[in-house]
Amino acid sequence: MKRLEKQIKFIVEIDKLKEIFRRSYITGGTRLENDAEHSWYFAMIALVLHEHAESEVDVCRVMKMALIHDIVEIDAGDVILYDVEARKKQAAREKAAALRIFNILPTDQADDLLELWREFEQGGTPDSRYARAVDRFSSIILNCSTGGKSWREHGITSARVKELNRGVIMAASPGLWNAVEKMIDNTFSAMHDK
Amino acid sequence: MKRLEKQIKFIVEIDKLKEIFRRSYITGGTRLENDAEHSWYFAMIALVLHEHAESEVDVCRVMKMALIHDIVEIDAGDVILYDVEARKKQAAREKAAALRIFNILPTDQADDLLELWREFEQGGTPDSRYARAVDRFSSIILNCSTGGKSWREHGITSARVKELNRGVIMAASPGLWNAVEKMIDNTFSAMHDK
Repeated sequence: MKRLEKQIKFIVEIDKLKEIFRRSYITGGTRLENDAEHSWYFAMIALVLHEHAESEVDVCRVMKMALIHDIVEIDAGDVILYDVEARKKQAAREKAAALRIFNILPTDQADDLLELWREFEQGGTPDSRYARAVDRFSSIILNCSTGGKSWREHGITSARVKELNRGVIMAASPGLWNAVEKMIDNTFSAMHDK
Repeated sequence: MKRLEKQIKFIVEIDKLKEIFRRSYITGGTRLENDAEHSWYFAMIALVLHEHAESEVDVCRVMKMALIHDIVEIDAGDVILYDVEARKKQAAREKAAALRIFNILPTDQADDLLELWREFEQGGTPDSRYARAVDRFSSIILNCSTGGKSWREHGITSARVKELNRGVIMAASPGLWNAVEKMIDNTFSAMHDK
């Protein structure tokens, strides 16, 4: 198969990401967010906030990570951050999915995207640490814009939100975590006032 | 207002892009595509196909164009490519929208994104010519994956699809246009065989 044919096959395949739904509501609160629009949102936030990363980052690489990071969920589905047990089993499914889907592309491109996806999953470089922080931030901001709608539905407390996100966001940007912690506090205060 | 506050305000504002719907169906054919997921798809296609651009392109700049190109539609709405009259009036609305929305950001960031958006709109550079070709391609591939569903609904002929897209795609990549023309022909042949 020619390179362009493989690339077009991949492009058709990844359109399915628009039908994988997450647990966060869009800011209108009318429906859940899907993985494709989440990936756009994540890339946009990475672009806008990169000056707040503690180590200098290559925003272009981070945007690429954002665009591809959830493609594995076409096969593996989405698991909520707060379900720690389910997330352990998820890792193996995501690895198999990455191999199947990225390998639709010509080998050189498949290898590049697989490497970038693994870097994001491992979070061991400044770029991937910043990317992982932005990914977390993108869900928190949607929750804070909808009165904590998804947190309420899943019975997630303020302490649990902080416990599971503090380390990841602090590792990339203590300044951003400062702002995020206030947003979380304000959201839960407003929930309790009701 | 501090920089981070302005940036967060912008991030909340652009989430509305997830509620602006286009005229193309996602490949499942079950619903129309929204602007946020379209922007993700456009950026992914730009990343995967850039070797086919006739002039060398900076794929990072093209991905940024893809991510921001439709943000103006939060105020201005989406107009189908084939409604040439409506598109003329659309330009002024989009300019006003760009000024309002990008200027929520700190001035330096607003200016950068406004400049990038204008470059995309004008299509006078290798990066923006390639971006415009990919934008067109992203709609055509969805139509071809759904048996021309949106074209059928709007009574668009094969000749009209080619007339309005040939120049834009050829200008960036004659090789890509070759493949696209075959995809269009196959889609319309299959429609007529039914």
